[in-house]
Amino acid sequence: MSDAAVLSALVLAERALIEAYIAVGAVKDVDAVRAEADALGVADVHALALAAVAGGNPVIPLANELRIFAGPHVKPWIHRGATSQDILDTALMLVAKDAAAHVLASLDAVVGSLEHFAQEYRDVPAAARTLTQHAVPTTVGLRAANWLRAVRRARARLAALEFPAQLGGAGGTLASFVEVAGRARASELPAAFATALGLAAPDGVWHVTRWPVTEAGDAFAQALDALGLIAADVATLSRTEIGELAEGTGGGSSAMPQKQNPARSVLIRSAAIRAPHLAATLHSAAGLAVDERPDGAWHAEWPTLRELLRLALGASAHAVDLVSGLRVNRDAVERNLAATGGLIVAERLSVALGPVLGRDRVKDIVSAAGAGGDLRALVAAALAEAGVDGVDVDDLLDPARYTGLAGASVDRATEDAADHSPLTEEESA
Amino acid sequence: MSDAAVLSALVLAERALIEAYIAVGAVKDVDAVRAEADALGVADVHALALAAVAGGNPVIPLANELRIFAGPHVKPWIHRGATSQDILDTALMLVAKDAAAHVLASLDAVVGSLEHFAQEYRDVPAAARTLTQHAVPTTVGLRAANWLRAVRRARARLAALEFPAQLGGAGGTLASFVEVAGRARASELPAAFATALGLAAPDGVWHVTRWPVTEAGDAFAQALDALGLIAADVATLSRTEIGELAEGTGGGSSAMPQKQNPARSVLIRSAAIRAPHLAATLHSAAGLAVDERPDGAWHAEWPTLRELLRLALGASAHAVDLVSGLRVNRDAVERNLAATGGLIVAERLSVALGPVLGRDRVKDIVSAAGAGGDLRALVAAALAEAGVDGVDVDDLLDPARYTGLAGASVDRATEDAADHSPLTEEESA
Amino acid sequence: MSDAAVLSALVLAERALIEAYIAVGAVKDVDAVRAEADALGVADVHALALAAVAGGNPVIPLANELRIFAGPHVKPWIHRGATSQDILDTALMLVAKDAAAHVLASLDAVVGSLEHFAQEYRDVPAAARTLTQHAVPTTVGLRAANWLRAVRRARARLAALEFPAQLGGAGGTLASFVEVAGRARASELPAAFATALGLAAPDGVWHVTRWPVTEAGDAFAQALDALGLIAADVATLSRTEIGELAEGTGGGSSAMPQKQNPARSVLIRSAAIRAPHLAATLHSAAGLAVDERPDGAWHAEWPTLRELLRLALGASAHAVDLVSGLRVNRDAVERNLAATGGLIVAERLSVALGPVLGRDRVKDIVSAAGAGGDLRALVAAALAEAGVDGVDVDDLLDPARYTGLAGASVDRATEDAADHSPLTEEESA
Amino acid sequence: MSDAAVLSALVLAERALIEAYIAVGAVKDVDAVRAEADALGVADVHALALAAVAGGNPVIPLANELRIFAGPHVKPWIHRGATSQDILDTALMLVAKDAAAHVLASLDAVVGSLEHFAQEYRDVPAAARTLTQHAVPTTVGLRAANWLRAVRRARARLAALEFPAQLGGAGGTLASFVEVAGRARASELPAAFATALGLAAPDGVWHVTRWPVTEAGDAFAQALDALGLIAADVATLSRTEIGELAEGTGGGSSAMPQKQNPARSVLIRSAAIRAPHLAATLHSAAGLAVDERPDGAWHAEWPTLRELLRLALGASAHAVDLVSGLRVNRDAVERNLAATGGLIVAERLSVALGPVLGRDRVKDIVSAAGAGGDLRALVAAALAEAGVDGVDVDDLLDPARYTGLAGASVDRATEDAADHSPLTEEESA
Repeated sequence: MSDAAVLSALVLAERALIEAYIAVGAVKDVDAVRAEADALGVADVHALALAAVAGGNPVIPLANELRIFAGPHVKPWIHRGATSQDILDTALMLVAKDAAAHVLASLDAVVGSLEHFAQEYRDVPAAARTLTQHAVPTTVGLRAANWLRAVRRARARLAALEFPAQLGGAGGTLASFVEVAGRARASELPAAFATALGLAAPDGVWHVTRWPVTEAGDAFAQALDALGLIAADVATLSRTEIGELAEGTGGGSSAMPQKQNPARSVLIRSAAIRAPHLAATLHSAAGLAVDERPDGAWHAEWPTLRELLRLALGASAHAVDLVSGLRVNRDAVERNLAATGGLIVAERLSVALGPVLGRDRVKDIVSAAGAGGDLRALVAAALAEAGVDGVDVDDLLDPARYTGLAGASVDRATEDAADHSPLTEEESA
Repeated sequence: MSDAAVLSALVLAERALIEAYIAVGAVKDVDAVRAEADALGVADVHALALAAVAGGNPVIPLANELRIFAGPHVKPWIHRGATSQDILDTALMLVAKDAAAHVLASLDAVVGSLEHFAQEYRDVPAAARTLTQHAVPTTVGLRAANWLRAVRRARARLAALEFPAQLGGAGGTLASFVEVAGRARASELPAAFATALGLAAPDGVWHVTRWPVTEAGDAFAQALDALGLIAADVATLSRTEIGELAEGTGGGSSAMPQKQNPARSVLIRSAAIRAPHLAATLHSAAGLAVDERPDGAWHAEWPTLRELLRLALGASAHAVDLVSGLRVNRDAVERNLAATGGLIVAERLSVALGPVLGRDRVKDIVSAAGAGGDLRALVAAALAEAGVDGVDVDDLLDPARYTGLAGASVDRATEDAADHSPLTEEESA
Repeated sequence: MSDAAVLSALVLAERALIEAYIAVGAVKDVDAVRAEADALGVADVHALALAAVAGGNPVIPLANELRIFAGPHVKPWIHRGATSQDILDTALMLVAKDAAAHVLASLDAVVGSLEHFAQEYRDVPAAARTLTQHAVPTTVGLRAANWLRAVRRARARLAALEFPAQLGGAGGTLASFVEVAGRARASELPAAFATALGLAAPDGVWHVTRWPVTEAGDAFAQALDALGLIAADVATLSRTEIGELAEGTGGGSSAMPQKQNPARSVLIRSAAIRAPHLAATLHSAAGLAVDERPDGAWHAEWPTLRELLRLALGASAHAVDLVSGLRVNRDAVERNLAATGGLIVAERLSVALGPVLGRDRVKDIVSAAGAGGDLRALVAAALAEAGVDGVDVDDLLDPARYTGLAGASVDRATEDAADHSPLTEEESA
Repeated sequence: MSDAAVLSALVLAERALIEAYIAVGAVKDVDAVRAEADALGVADVHALALAAVAGGNPVIPLANELRIFAGPHVKPWIHRGATSQDILDTALMLVAKDAAAHVLASLDAVVGSLEHFAQEYRDVPAAARTLTQHAVPTTVGLRAANWLRAVRRARARLAALEFPAQLGGAGGTLASFVEVAGRARASELPAAFATALGLAAPDGVWHVTRWPVTEAGDAFAQALDALGLIAADVATLSRTEIGELAEGTGGGSSAMPQKQNPARSVLIRSAAIRAPHLAATLHSAAGLAVDERPDGAWHAEWPTLRELLRLALGASAHAVDLVSGLRVNRDAVERNLAATGGLIVAERLSVALGPVLGRDRVKDIVSAAGAGGDLRALVAAALAEAGVDGVDVDDLLDPARYTGLAGASVDRATEDAADHSPLTEEESA
């Protein structure tokens, strides 16, 4: 979403307008116009940039720039009937659509890696943490399966985005196009314009009804939310004391070679912190639109959407590397799981032994273990004391035996992937 | 989304969990348990409120309150196996779904009024304003048709929302439910729980994958964006000097009886200013989730989502009144349209006469008219001077003849409504 | 910042206006008016609430309510000449000032605890973590000293806030007050009004210049930033695997008694996540103000500021408990410091031995230690090999000897506290 | 705040660190080091940019770049002991301070223009608008005086900002500097570093206590709030139907030459819409800082602060032109003031005649006038009917006689300016 990419999209939009005029039959000397249209380009990018800043809008200076070296046949058709917002909105949809395609490809790669990862670690028990504390067991695979679900959901929203072209003329009535090409041809012009660019035909002018912008913003923000969750977990679980996960190649530090910074997680997290505010800016602008074209709200959108696209592109690319290279330190996983001396299954004791020994008795056992007692011995003694037979204490205290439906959930998440392949989604979108 | 509504939803969720245990066959004395479950209620709401504030979470004190007067059969089933987030997330989905239904009903009423309004004023020419200035003509009807499109789009997003129940237990593995009811029954429990509440069966636990919350937030924000546009236009067009629109019954001022404040527009605008920040808070929370249940991000969601629901409920209700009572002052519309002495069709002159008279000549005419000259006389003189015959100057200068495809756009928007009736959408959702 | 608190502030503001009229000499029957003014109260709070919702503004119904049982002398003076925004803005400044005083008191308590804590742990070495990884040593005390600096800075901003009364009449010219009381008395009225309430005399009407609101919002947000930092550190350092810190009494879990949730940190973090969005809403409103009183922006402020005050009150109260009860597990601090097998001083080796042994040689040592080698033996061998004498290897490898100026920084921070006692600041503010 | 400006600031910071080492006496071959330090520069900006993106941080590649062509004496001192955040935070404070100086200069120019404008139109009565409707009279000058107050307040906050240098080393303890230069010299290093750059000496390390960033963000946002108010008023009052104000040279439209877009107002408004979200991002980052250096929050600050500086620089420059060229159309002001047929003084009638004629009688008069009656005749008839003599009806109905203390407020605002000249403030800051 560099300046060059936006400029290129603007030129594409201006060319597509000429192509649309041709498509609806408004142009007589088609070959000459088309040939000259293909040759259109910006004579002086630097001058254009300056004029754009001065005028608050790059489109009017762009049209002027294009006309400088334009051939005589195409010249009268440049920007004809259009308002600058038509071109700029359309160009933004082009870059947004392009960014979405790149982000989708990255998310597909992330999904692929996570499916594999979740299955590989499907049955590796690990401490589930809630409010920062060890709670009960989960599995390394289930955590990844949940990441997968979040990413796949975000992917679906991105894939479902509509990117309509914009064509309305100064007041959104298409009157200028009617004047130029007649009513019938003007009616077909927006769809022809969209077709020339691979964008969706607009249902109507959207100069002030800004859902194409906010829905894109929301979807990119949702993608960054999903990646932010992964990054938060990786950053946390790669803490020196926890060490369950490590990025494939951490960001190094020359002075502190022992550090393996979760550099990609950090960058993704920074994007996840920023994205909500950028998406919100788009909503602020949308809710403050007024008249037939707004008095400031529209101008707030361009740089904001571009920055959000940049964040999404960067973070999703980082996520591909992060997830594909993610390493699990099984020793650390096991060590941490044992860190509470078996109390990670305290909930299970409460559920399973409560009815047998009484809830208070179970609490006493857990308290004693928390104070340093041997949990296995305490449980065995209590069962003996109560005359209860037939309880498999080893099973009861084994975290791997208290992971509930984690495996099934991993299977469902990874099977879902097969059912909802990108291709299928794309086709139905 | 009052405290009472949330409390009620929490109690419903706790009851539904018991119902779900019954549904999957985990309960033996079904009749007794169900009868006692139906009688569950909060003994002391005030005590509950205090305990909720102290503990940072209303669910644990709620379960305790419910147990106080619970019958002996139902008591062990209360909150069994659940984590407080299961109940609270589910309750929030209940209130969000309920709010969505109310907002949808309001938006339907708005859509209905706007369809009528847009058709009624389909062909009434009015000044289109861009960057606050009169630009070209549009129609009163097209403006309303664009509002309609924005509202209908927002409506579709709201109608498409999924509200899943939440059931995962302490670590999201459902291990506690397996312990209580066995693996097979536990597998069916989340769907049974959802069914008992009319919510969607969860694809998996979403303790840290927060799209159900952010997607709801985004959709409500989009609804407020759409209403904000209407309110901005009504507030602007009911300015004393413009006076084209008036709310049916303005907010009065005892001291200044001449004032007819666009009170509903003002309130809707205030909601549109706030909503983006609330929706963004939900994304901030989603992107910062971590572990199996988060260390602060989750707690940021409840009050934020509730406030956003309140805003959407209030603003959409105001919008129903606003739109249904909206009055057009045709004299003002006409007076304003003439305010630039005919120059509102300057663009048309440029397009239509440019090729005939030369662009510079047209500019001179417009300049002279802008300086106070009579536009009709200036155009007629120029045509005569250039020896151009057959131009219908009256038609050329008539704003009503330069509204392009406004009428067709109104028709398409109002026809769309027929095709996509609320009922149809509901069925397909 | 409950509804009751705001209502009470509104009544205080209405009474203060009467008192101000008395103070400037506009009232003849002073004793009768004052006595009746003191008796003013709301007849029916419920009716008032309903009217406020319906009218979008609680002040007009409030004035009506006050008049119902008002004595005959005071009745004509109720709300005389004022606009509803005068009363509401003033009431909001009252509640904001009150909240600031409470938050300041809490921050003072936090500061006091942190000074003690920072000195107590001034020289306890601990791992400094950057990008989640152990980097170099720091001290437990320095971390607290930095918290202290952030809190004290935020405190200074809160203490420096100005809370002006608002009095301008319908258009901000005070014309109604001139009409009622004459020019000279009207000139003195705003200051007299402010004095009656303990607020600052306004420099001018601020109906649309909203810095009193945004500056308050920024200061409360800064306070929550500072507390958020403490909470983030406590939540992190009380993770099961890290265990260096613990809240005095953690939030318990009945099912998982081994958990000691950092409950206050979690609640403070949730406030820190929300606050920036609320403060931003106030800026959005301020930047969109227009005319002599705005068309929506103002209405967006009330609930937002109130919620922000609630967050600050809650979080600062939690912080008092959190900080005063904070416990350090010295064993865990020591264990973690040793977790990298001495490599926490790798930077020192690089700085100190690089010039002696060469940077590459030091890197080799660090790599070998990272792969499991004994750091002390490796360093000693390298020094011997290079024939370097006189290096105190024990000192070199002792993390406690590589804490730089941490102690001095703690001293400066805690001395600062003495120099800038709350009382002194208050006096100079 | 271009990339070049930031790079330049980074190089300045790296040089200043060397200068600081010299200043505290840590360097022996001072002349050689200084000479080589002055020659330091980036060998390959493009390579640096690529490395910065890849590593997520421009400082480490920058130090490497600087070393490539560095002389042998200075080489070991480059980046010595520093952490990348030291350099980057310091560079950001440099660019922020520089931006603040430019914005302050612009605001001074705005203040100067507004003082003149407010005095010039001190006594020109105009319609005060509240909730978009004419309310009572005000003056053109008072409106500008209120803008002036908002700008001056924002100016004071900007002028009071502190921009501390950052120097703490990897863990914020300055241990590396102690190792290099000894305890005494290291103690003086941060202040010497700050002095070399014209920044404030840091009270302590602020790697995670981010008030220098948020306070800057808040102040720039407040400046944009103040300018946003001006822009909103100018955009509104230059609407075609209102026409009271016009920007000196409006943004033109080639197709619609009659348009005089308030182009600067539009651009300032767009900045005012975006700024709150950017400032909020800085608070989000500050409240999520953790450890000795954060895991993502810090990285979210750089691009956000830079964008906010850009907005403030652009908007304040536009504001200088806007305000200095602002034109008043007195005819329009007068015409609008009369638009309600005299009812703009309805409040005055209520206050002045209510006690004489009874409130209901006054309401009847106003209603009759609102329905088209002649207000003067209605009042005169009512007074005659009631036998009231001596009321100067012309005075009573003259809007110019009901502007209250507007003139005095203008005087106070413009006198304040004299008292608080920029110079004086600067000195006291």
